[in-house]
Parts: sequence; C-alpha cells; structure tokens
Amino acid sequence: MAKKIPTRLYLSEEEQPRYWYNLRADMKAKPDPILHPGTLKPVTAQDLEPVFCKELVKQELDDDTRLIEIPEGILEFYRAYRPAPLIRAYFLEKELDTPAEIYYKHEGTNTSGSHKLNSAVPQAFYAREEGLENLTTETGAGQWGSALAMATAFYRIGLTVYMVKISSEQKPYRKALMETYGAKVLASPSETTEVGKKILAENPGTGGSLGCAISEALETAMKTPKCRYVLGSVLNHVLLHQSIIGQETKAALDKYGIKPDLIIGCAGGGSNLGGLIAPFMGERIAGKSSTRFIAVEPASCPSLTRGRYAYDFGDTGKTTPLIRMATLGSGFIPSPNHAGGLRYHGMSSILTRLHKDGYLEARSEIQSDVFQAAVRFAKVEGILPAPESSHAIKAAIDEALECKRTGEKKVIVFGLTGTGYFDMTAYISYHAGSMTDHVPTDEELQRGFGTIPDIPQNRQPV
Amino acid sequence: MAKKIPTRLYLSEEEQPRYWYNLRADMKAKPDPILHPGTLKPVTAQDLEPVFCKELVKQELDDDTRLIEIPEGILEFYRAYRPAPLIRAYFLEKELDTPAEIYYKHEGTNTSGSHKLNSAVPQAFYAREEGLENLTTETGAGQWGSALAMATAFYRIGLTVYMVKISSEQKPYRKALMETYGAKVLASPSETTEVGKKILAENPGTGGSLGCAISEALETAMKTPKCRYVLGSVLNHVLLHQSIIGQETKAALDKYGIKPDLIIGCAGGGSNLGGLIAPFMGERIAGKSSTRFIAVEPASCPSLTRGRYAYDFGDTGKTTPLIRMATLGSGFIPSPNHAGGLRYHGMSSILTRLHKDGYLEARSEIQSDVFQAAVRFAKVEGILPAPESSHAIKAAIDEALECKRTGEKKVIVFGLTGTGYFDMTAYISYHAGSMTDHVPTDEELQRGFGTIPDIPQNRQPV
Repeated sequence: MAKKIPTRLYLSEEEQPRYWYNLRADMKAKPDPILHPGTLKPVTAQDLEPVFCKELVKQELDDDTRLIEIPEGILEFYRAYRPAPLIRAYFLEKELDTPAEIYYKHEGTNTSGSHKLNSAVPQAFYAREEGLENLTTETGAGQWGSALAMATAFYRIGLTVYMVKISSEQKPYRKALMETYGAKVLASPSETTEVGKKILAENPGTGGSLGCAISEALETAMKTPKCRYVLGSVLNHVLLHQSIIGQETKAALDKYGIKPDLIIGCAGGGSNLGGLIAPFMGERIAGKSSTRFIAVEPASCPSLTRGRYAYDFGDTGKTTPLIRMATLGSGFIPSPNHAGGLRYHGMSSILTRLHKDGYLEARSEIQSDVFQAAVRFAKVEGILPAPESSHAIKAAIDEALECKRTGEKKVIVFGLTGTGYFDMTAYISYHAGSMTDHVPTDEELQRGFGTIPDIPQNRQPV
Repeated sequence: MAKKIPTRLYLSEEEQPRYWYNLRADMKAKPDPILHPGTLKPVTAQDLEPVFCKELVKQELDDDTRLIEIPEGILEFYRAYRPAPLIRAYFLEKELDTPAEIYYKHEGTNTSGSHKLNSAVPQAFYAREEGLENLTTETGAGQWGSALAMATAFYRIGLTVYMVKISSEQKPYRKALMETYGAKVLASPSETTEVGKKILAENPGTGGSLGCAISEALETAMKTPKCRYVLGSVLNHVLLHQSIIGQETKAALDKYGIKPDLIIGCAGGGSNLGGLIAPFMGERIAGKSSTRFIAVEPASCPSLTRGRYAYDFGDTGKTTPLIRMATLGSGFIPSPNHAGGLRYHGMSSILTRLHKDGYLEARSEIQSDVFQAAVRFAKVEGILPAPESSHAIKAAIDEALECKRTGEKKVIVFGLTGTGYFDMTAYISYHAGSMTDHVPTDEELQRGFGTIPDIPQNRQPV
C-alpha cells in the first residue's frame, strides 16, 4: 500500500543531499563552449580567472563530473535554511478539482526570499577560501543582490551591488535589506565606472538595464585588487549550485515512491529551472523515465520561445565572453511595464541545448494571466508568490486543469522560486487593473537581434 | 551519549501536537474574572456571544481543561505551514563566543510573516462552522490583519479590517497584502462608525490608535448580521491557540532530551509569549522544573514593568468588558517614533498574574538597542527579524553574554515571532541614525493611568 503523503515532505539532516548534480555530465550533446570575444576560440581557465574565483571557473568548464561534493563550509549555511519545503498542494488540487497530484518546492522561506541564496552561498564561500576581500555583482529585481549580501555578511567579505536604477528607485526596501547586511548598493548606470559614465553621457535619463549593471560590476571587479565578479544566473556553475533544489526534491519524492510526470519552472536566465530538473533530466536522457519538462517565460521577454540560437554577449557593454544561447540580443530591453525579474535577454546554454534537442518544452505567459494564477494560489495555499514563480504556477494550473478534462492522474511538480513581499507594487497595480501586458512586436525583436554579434559561428545553420 | 543536535530540530507530521495547552488549568491563582462594564459582575457566556463566536467564548472562560483537541479542519491548515522551524543558533553562539546553547522558534516562515496566523486560523474556522459570513478586526503594525486575511480567504468568509490610520499610510504594502487575500481595509478612525466619526470630529488630524480601531471593529461587528469581532492578542483564547508554539517547541526539545533553563519572548499583548511558555510553565508551577521565563517589552510601552495592575478597558472607546491586567490605561498612546507592534496599553491577564506571582520576569528595552541586536542576529543567522521579535533577541544575547562571563552552559530558548520584510522603513531609519528612543516620563504615565476606570475593584490593594 502506498504511504500517505504528508502536506510537507520532509528530509532529515542526515537525508539531505551532500552533492550537487552536474547535468552536463548526462547530456549527449554538450552545450557549445564559451568563446573568447577577441579570438573567438574556446575560453580557458586562465581567460576566466581574472574575473571569477578559481573554483567557480573549474566548475564552469567541467562538463564531465556528474556529482560534485558540497564542502562542509557551505553545507553548514545550507542547513540553516534548507531543506526547502516540498509541499503537496492538497488545497490547490481541491480548488481546481483535478485528479492530478501537485507538488511544489518552496524556495522562498529564507530572508533573501528566493532560491538565489543557493548559489550566493558557495560563491561567497569560495571567494573567502581564495583570500578575496571583495565581490561585485548586479541586481535587477533584487533577489540576487539580497542573497549575495546575506552570504557575504556571513563569510565576512565586502560586496558592491550595481542595482538597475529604476529598480533601486522602485524598491527602496530591497536596497535597505542589502544595506542591512552591509552591502554597498549603487544605482546603475553610476559615475563609478567608465561604462556607466559613457551610458549616462549618451542617455542621462536612463533607468538602466541588467546588461548595463553587469558591465559596471565587471569593470569594477577587474580594476579592484582582491576582487572578483559574481553572477546569479545563466552560467553553468550557477545551475550546478541550484541543483541542490532538484537533489532535495528527488530525494523527498523517492522517499515516498513518487514519480513526476511533469516538472515545471519559470525561466529567466534559467538557474532555478536548471537546478530543479537536473537529476530528473539525467534519468530522462538515460531513457529511465519519460518525465516532461516545461520552461515558462514571460511573453515580454521570450528568449526560448521567440529568440535566436546564437553566440551572444552576457552584457550590454559587450565585454563578456560569448555564450551560445537562446537570446533576444544583449541590446534587447523588456517593456518597463514588466513586473519582477525574468527580464534577461539570454538563457542558460544548458537549457538552450536541452530545448533544441527536444528534452525541454517552452511556453510564454502574459503577466495579467500570471498574476491571476498567483492570487488564486495565494488564497488557497497561503503563500504569496513572487511574480517570477507565478509563471510556473500558471502553467501548473493549466496542466492540472487539462488533467481534469482528460481524467489523467498526472504527478505535477513545480518550482516556487520565491515570495512576493518586495513586489507589492506589482500586486497593487494588478488589483487596480492598471497592469498592462506588453508582448514585443516582431520589429522590436528584430532590433534586439541586430545587437547579436555578426561572427562566423553565428552564420552557421543551427 | 547525547544525540547530535541538528541545526533545525524537526517534527514529522505524526509527531506534531494535536492539542492546545491551556495554561490556566495549571495556575494555582487563576487570572481574575472578566467583568461586565455595566454591572461590574463576572461576564457570562451569554454576555460575550453577541461579540465573539460561541466556541471562542467557551475557550475564553475555560480555566480548567488542560488539553484541548485541535479540530482536523484547523490541523489541515496548520500542516501547510507548521511545524515552525526550531533552530539551534549555532552561528549566533559562535558570534557571541558563549558557552550557552541558544534555540529559537521561527514563526515567520508563513506569508503573514508572524505567529499571528496560529490564532487567525481557528478564529476563522470557528466562525465558518457557526455559520457566520463576516468578521471584523483591527490591526496596527499589520501582522494580525494579514494573518486573518489569509485565514478568512481560506475558509471563505468576509473580513473588514480597521487599520490604524498612520500604519495604513506608512505601510501600503501591508494593506495590499490584505487586499490580495480579499479583505476590505479601512483606515481608522473612519466615517463608517459612530465612534470613528466622533473621534474624527474631536481630532480631525489624528493618526489613530489600536484602541480606537478596536472600538470601530467592535461597533461594526455588533451592527452587522452574521458578523462577529475577533482579536489577535491579549485574550485567553488567543493565548490558548498560540500554545501550538510551545507544544511544538517542547515536543522537539524533548525529542533531543533538551531542558531549557531560560525561555524568552517579546510581549505586547502577550499572545506569543503566553503560547511559547504554556507547557513549560505548567512544569514549573508543578515544581518539576526550575525554568526561568522572561517577558521583554519596549521601553516606550512598558505595561508589565511600569504599568498598574488594574481592571481596564481593552479599547479607547471604553466599550469592552473589563480585564484585570498590567495596564498603562486605555488612553495611553506610545510615542509615534516607536517602530513596529508591541504598542498595546495592556497585557494578557494570564501573563500579568504569572508576573505578579513571581513565575514570569519582565524587562524593557529601548529600540536602538533592539535594532542593534536585530542586525547582529540577521548577519549571522540569515534571518531578518521583525522589530517585535528583536526584543527577545536583545535579551537572549544579553543572557548568553552573561553566561560567557560566568562560564555557565545555560540552555536559552527564545521566540522569533516574525520577519521584518514589511518593516524596512524602521531599518532605514536605524541605519540613517535617525531612530529615536522615547521612554515615557512619569507625567506621561500618570496621564495614561488617569484613564483607568475608577471602580471599587481598582481601589482594593493588589
């Protein structure tokens, strides 16, 4: 007889995963190598080490090691807020009157409010281990900056955050949270970098963009002694750290003998989704399961569903190495009406490859539908979700309602990446009926594609 | 050999408590009876039922039943967010370099952000069971209103919240959170009640007070069909519901063979502290333990440390029954510079009695010291605490540092009642150095005492 499934599927401290899962080891076709923007040759560790910590560079370039042991110095921080609850959505199932079983992994119970802490912790840990004294980064909606501020406070190293100017004005509380943890927060573009000064000179009234903030953080890291740059999404090592989400989810589901039919996650740069699916995708690629995987992105920033598969820069300033990914072009800027995160122009090269090879489905949603799903979820499950996470909720509800039509008893798992406590202005705008849905026109997309580098690799058929 | 203590002491779904603990059953001297304000005789169930649900009235007046079974309809909601984590503060211990063991019960992982949900859930449940269609309440800092909005959304009944006007202006996000859950939020004083109109006529520019909001919520409940009033603290039945905190804490500590030497909680109306200590105090009164208990209140609203022990009204409008409690007088209004909750003029009659009889110690703290403790805690434990909870943190740190001086290896447990995500303005003011500490002068206290009713009972020596 099947065990009764509790509302919260728990793992004891002994049952908690001690390894990250490197999904690249399972991929038959690996993500294309990162290219040096000058030579257009694959980057080496030496190329990357002036920018990133050594251990992170090693992880970034490691396509082969499936399980990577998590150091004790990281596990002790993980234990303070993990395992994240894996919750059986009994109330949502009842609300939808669906035969489907719905589970969600709730990453929002830590102070940063999202899954971003899972990568902030190792990135700060390795920086301290390698004798660094400062880190720089960028933040848009603010989850990543908050997470990194918590981690650098804990490991006692300095942090400068370039916060997209319009976000720092709209979200003073996010800024205050980072400052409480001792971070220096600068509105980007700023006067502290050459790239910032240049952008301000050209466009004094700009509200900034994530790509621009990345350029500033990179420049500062390069010119400051004992300082490196850290990024909260997109890169391989970030997805690796986020695999703690999938590792815990799989351990808890296995404990109760549950096999997911469908795993759903929101996707901006792809770190949460890449982490959630990692061990499950390994089984799928090996032919041991037929689990389906769905990436849900905002219709206002649709890199997987409407982007190009091309080598592109990670930043607006065009200073990073080139990553082959689904991209809207580093010059693409989503509508300012778009609330919350998921506004990055590119998508993790791992997820891009899995999508191209038919393992990962993708769809996009407009934000008023997403907020409708968020409020429906909040009222029955008692958790106020982040706008980002609500993209996954929307898709999970749609799939559960499809099960109701067909009578199928599917097991649906989705990632609840965070809470919406710092996104109340968006909820206010939704309630007031003043939320607008902007879907980029083909012309707007073409303008973005025009910023993708014209290099030989991008002229090959994909 | 002692078991290794994990960072988070977990209870499985089967180990979770199914009973509330009614501390009054253990008390040798019971709290004095509530009096009818007209007759000055002890109130009967019939007196209270026009205002409160029947089941809550029964619980309010029950001084004898030690364990009260929690209905399944309430347990199912509790299971969605409980057990609240009981966390060993390994990092704080290391930061303080203390031989003490520190544990805290973290009630802030639910969307309302605090322990208030523990009583909101049963109050909404009983209302629905008794066929009511609407509830009214008041909220100050907003935790209680948020919690009740979540609970009424879940049980599908209506809710009107009178929110202290100055709070509703300073905390638009709290208001938006309640509205997301479908509550109607009115700034108090409002034009919807006689008492509100009267107060506005006398003092058009007033920012309101909790006592005034209570009067408005009560009036609306009395004049609306199928509607009752609910209160989030002070009353006996609220402390009963909050005993789930203590029940879980005790079950988890017992599982690891841990005996607390000291239990610390912040105290406004007293519900969190009363709930946390309930089963432990039972053992102390029975002579089975020598655990010490400490209530920590703000120096700006010091009912236990500087108040009178007297029969007093619960509201500014002087319409409620009379409760014998530590009180500053229903006309006392704490300094507007005081951030967060813990600004009620009176203290639970249970805690007042325990204090009077020597079982409960009390101290007060100024808010700049409290925020300093909050930031220290946040940086090492990774949780941004609510200003209220930080009073307990301040006392726990002081006690742990005292252990460092004496070399004693005490076990200290404190209640972390909630998170500070909706209190960032207070953190901003603390960082900016613009936070002020107001301690009421003797003259200010005397003015408050002047509003305590002059009735025969209050002329007896205490």
